[in-house]
Amino acid sequence: MGNMGERALTGNGESRREMMPSWQKEQAEVERVLSGLSRRAAWSGGPPIANVLMARVLAQPDLISLAAGFVEHLSLPVELVERAIEKLFSSRTVALESLQYGTTLGHPRLRRAIWERLCQEDAAVGLRHAGPEQIVITAGSNQLLYLVAEALLDPGDIILCAAPSYFVFLGMIKSFGARSVGVACDHHGMIPDALEDRLAWLERRGELDRVKAIYVASYFDNPTGLSLASERRPALVEVAQRWSRKHRLYIIEDCAYRDLSYYEEEWSSLRSYDATGQYVVMLGSFSKSFSPGLRVGWGLLPPALLDPVLSLKGHHDFGSPNFNQMVMATILEEGWLEEHVARLRSIYRRKLEATLKAVEGMLRPVVAVDYVPPRGGLYVWLQLPEEWDTGVEGPLFQSAVEEGVVYVPGEYCFPEEGEPPRRCCLRVSFAMPDDVSLEKGMARLARAIARCGSAAPR
Amino acid sequence: MGNMGERALTGNGESRREMMPSWQKEQAEVERVLSGLSRRAAWSGGPPIANVLMARVLAQPDLISLAAGFVEHLSLPVELVERAIEKLFSSRTVALESLQYGTTLGHPRLRRAIWERLCQEDAAVGLRHAGPEQIVITAGSNQLLYLVAEALLDPGDIILCAAPSYFVFLGMIKSFGARSVGVACDHHGMIPDALEDRLAWLERRGELDRVKAIYVASYFDNPTGLSLASERRPALVEVAQRWSRKHRLYIIEDCAYRDLSYYEEEWSSLRSYDATGQYVVMLGSFSKSFSPGLRVGWGLLPPALLDPVLSLKGHHDFGSPNFNQMVMATILEEGWLEEHVARLRSIYRRKLEATLKAVEGMLRPVVAVDYVPPRGGLYVWLQLPEEWDTGVEGPLFQSAVEEGVVYVPGEYCFPEEGEPPRRCCLRVSFAMPDDVSLEKGMARLARAIARCGSAAPR
Repeated sequence: MGNMGERALTGNGESRREMMPSWQKEQAEVERVLSGLSRRAAWSGGPPIANVLMARVLAQPDLISLAAGFVEHLSLPVELVERAIEKLFSSRTVALESLQYGTTLGHPRLRRAIWERLCQEDAAVGLRHAGPEQIVITAGSNQLLYLVAEALLDPGDIILCAAPSYFVFLGMIKSFGARSVGVACDHHGMIPDALEDRLAWLERRGELDRVKAIYVASYFDNPTGLSLASERRPALVEVAQRWSRKHRLYIIEDCAYRDLSYYEEEWSSLRSYDATGQYVVMLGSFSKSFSPGLRVGWGLLPPALLDPVLSLKGHHDFGSPNFNQMVMATILEEGWLEEHVARLRSIYRRKLEATLKAVEGMLRPVVAVDYVPPRGGLYVWLQLPEEWDTGVEGPLFQSAVEEGVVYVPGEYCFPEEGEPPRRCCLRVSFAMPDDVSLEKGMARLARAIARCGSAAPR
Repeated sequence: MGNMGERALTGNGESRREMMPSWQKEQAEVERVLSGLSRRAAWSGGPPIANVLMARVLAQPDLISLAAGFVEHLSLPVELVERAIEKLFSSRTVALESLQYGTTLGHPRLRRAIWERLCQEDAAVGLRHAGPEQIVITAGSNQLLYLVAEALLDPGDIILCAAPSYFVFLGMIKSFGARSVGVACDHHGMIPDALEDRLAWLERRGELDRVKAIYVASYFDNPTGLSLASERRPALVEVAQRWSRKHRLYIIEDCAYRDLSYYEEEWSSLRSYDATGQYVVMLGSFSKSFSPGLRVGWGLLPPALLDPVLSLKGHHDFGSPNFNQMVMATILEEGWLEEHVARLRSIYRRKLEATLKAVEGMLRPVVAVDYVPPRGGLYVWLQLPEEWDTGVEGPLFQSAVEEGVVYVPGEYCFPEEGEPPRRCCLRVSFAMPDDVSLEKGMARLARAIARCGSAAPR
């Protein structure tokens, strides 16, 4: 993909299209029709930002990426995977099964193991009206998000998202011709009153029926690294229930980073506050907590969504690879996931603290940076003074690339409507670089900021 | 999925909906709206037939399935996968890479290995305007079919399909709100003149612009087991080119069964006759020739489809699991695929011949059965006299289930429009059952036919 690097420098396909004059937009539409492409193909835009930034890093090896959502490379669980496969292959019957087709729903052993782990995590409140038979295994939690969005969204439909939110999901919503509408957040996550206000605002505009779901990343979210406060969890579920009028308003609870808690804190999931089990779609992944190369994610679905999602998944891929599922099942059954997660927690905690130290020691001397220290996850969300522009077209991003570092511009993380994008923010990911690169990367970022700060900031 | 077994007995969700009176259809639509589901969710119907039949087999272990598209269980390549993983994990660098994120396009080693193998297979004519950079790795070839369909189809669009065709793809077309329109076939595959007639017929109806692609399974196809004759290959490409008017008319060439050739025959692909490389989407899979539990497929795409498909795949899953791709790359690089395919060919050839012998020895004495002996693949397509109904609601299927055997009813394999479905046909798959079960299954089928034959056949 020769043009990916260029795209990363000049902005991704989508934002370029947004800036097109209308005659160019028309021409793009004509080209789409000439090549026989669907509207879905047009809506899905260029490759998602994550891929663009990833490709950029792969293309320039001396660049330090504080952007990519990769996990720490050297901590990947080679020995545990080896041991799991050895165990799997010690029985010929099991080995043969792992190489055969499975079911669309997913392997029973893995679904059972995920369910048992969930019950431990949510023991405080409990998971009512649920069981392993409502768990679907997917290609990372990304595919679960896709399938749920596909099952819910017609063009023009709305998903309410925290502002800021996980930008890959925002792009996905757009790829269905649907709309992401922002809800205000503070340091404790999405604000229930702001959600209520946003729903009332949509109702006044006659758009309430288009709202299909509320997307909430409840643990150490991407991009802010923050978790939803305990008392807001039942409150959000209550708002969703109360505003379910002509149809049910689902909460999509993304728990991808739940395991990455560095200070022995735990919160009961939103799902645990959903007493009827009808409103919350809960999803998780082993990509961050174990290995993204195995691509195993899962969702715990309300009964009404189970058949539609399975039906769509049947069309997509017939079910995720049996082999990968049985490896992950073995890892869970043997308690090896907990072992690995404990190691990751100490590694990432150290890196998080090093990042925060660099923010204080390197960035604060050159700019009035604001942030909330995360308690887990892989990201720190930095806010520069209002007049700064962190976008790929702006001077800071260009300086950063020249210094040899990239980050995720904050503007990507804002829903299309509702809340204005904050162009002065940026996301720093400390997961991939080693300790030395992390420090070097932060120093480069400080130099880039200093360079722009001495000139006009915009 | 407790209701899957029942579904398999009473027909799949889709066919049930088709038989609904209109007030029930309206009610189903009301329920869809109440549960906030998308039109895609409604179009995608119940689980695809394949899954339903698979679930049926899993639920009743004494049933012999001549229906499931599973591969021979005992021949699954346990030792080769073990060896490949050992090799992969002998280098820590490589092991770490296999557990990390990859790219959406797919792993370069695997794409290179697939490309080199293709060049050998298509050496006779050659592959022009192509290279490994146009190869996308997917979750089986099924996901490639899905992504291409998603990139091309708006609701109401048309894909022309052989009648009969791979029923999973027909269901997929429907799941996009699009239409499959049949083209007549004979013992040599899709008839170029019939394709031309069908295009002219659609043109007269003002629907030519809705035709996005022609689907052709060119090797030992599913369900008939037959291959497209040599001289028809360039002819079909020529028709697609000539009828590409307002937009390009793609050929989707499904090569999933290409490796399963039992009499040392080979044909150059349709892709090799596409001199500009702009018209043919070629796709293949290692599910049939190696292991469906690894779920690795691929597509060689025309340049105009590459970005749209990658963009959609980025939204779906960020790329297929790196681990599975690197295992398959190792298998290919070491020549172990050829080793395994040679073994499979001798196993399946024996089973194919046993099936044909059973058709002659067991079925022919009780019914005037017609068929063309396949030269490869996993299926035999049987035609009973016109008045027979092989459908799941008909007496033969019920008798077969009572005798303890299932097959795929022929009616599932026909496009929605164009050519009338042939309800007197059925597909027998000889891949999964062992030699004893295969013979027993054919004997049960013969008894079921005999029972229905002595009563009124319909």
